[in-house]
Amino acid sequence: MGIDPGVARIGWAVVEAGKNPPKAVAYGCITTKQSDAHEQRLLVTYKAFCTLFSRYKPDCVSMEELFFSKNVKTAIHVGEGRGVLLLAAAMHKTLVTSYAPLTIKQTICGDGKAEKIQIQHMVKRILKLKEIPQPDDAADALAIALTHAYSYKIKERTV
Amino acid sequence: MGIDPGVARIGWAVVEAGKNPPKAVAYGCITTKQSDAHEQRLLVTYKAFCTLFSRYKPDCVSMEELFFSKNVKTAIHVGEGRGVLLLAAAMHKTLVTSYAPLTIKQTICGDGKAEKIQIQHMVKRILKLKEIPQPDDAADALAIALTHAYSYKIKERTV
Repeated sequence: MGIDPGVARIGWAVVEAGKNPPKAVAYGCITTKQSDAHEQRLLVTYKAFCTLFSRYKPDCVSMEELFFSKNVKTAIHVGEGRGVLLLAAAMHKTLVTSYAPLTIKQTICGDGKAEKIQIQHMVKRILKLKEIPQPDDAADALAIALTHAYSYKIKERTV
Repeated sequence: MGIDPGVARIGWAVVEAGKNPPKAVAYGCITTKQSDAHEQRLLVTYKAFCTLFSRYKPDCVSMEELFFSKNVKTAIHVGEGRGVLLLAAAMHKTLVTSYAPLTIKQTICGDGKAEKIQIQHMVKRILKLKEIPQPDDAADALAIALTHAYSYKIKERTV
């Protein structure tokens, strides 16, 4: 399972990595209400991911590393959201691997500076989907899941 | 309950605010092992605080706001730890108020630039303790709890 962390929108995607090409099993986006208290949004996120983990029982989780932008307050909130996602994974005894945005872009597009739309096109191509997955957060989560699938395969080959 | 967030050491303190002087009911520090995976440490923290919330049933929680230091990686990890603490509070339907380090120092010592040792002495004095509470993390948590107790009283008076 790939996860694109956040507070308002958290993308998720389950990919079967053993197949060639890898198969998109399910994907979506959990949203939380801006009108809710921050800790309430964390609770909604946590419960939603506990349900997803129980439903799909992923072998492993890959998550985007935090990218600290100009807005430190937003970054802190996203960090808090990420903590809750890590906790949900630990609760379900699922190993988490984190990838920097650059690594994800490099793995999917072969270019660390790839644009969002290029990533989306490559995700569609790799998974042989008819259309670009929607919403964007889910497409990002698919890219994160595929990044781990590829790095995992590489590790398998070299062991 | 006051909480001093962290990953390796998380201070906590339960204060009875209705009394004059306020009374320290219990305080301590939850520690997690550096040798454990980060998400495992978050899980230990979460479970420990769920136990504390069930045991002490605090009316409200006050927590120190994140202070972003030079080490961004540490700050992200502490942010993730803070997310788990906020979740535990939300799980137990406990309202959380956050205070900046400056506000805590100002409330306890009347000086936003007060040193750690000054805070500890004031905490000891306010709570009429025989010694400075140990460890430091617990003393910090007491200061955070007292900050909320005082700001809460002020609000009560002005309503």
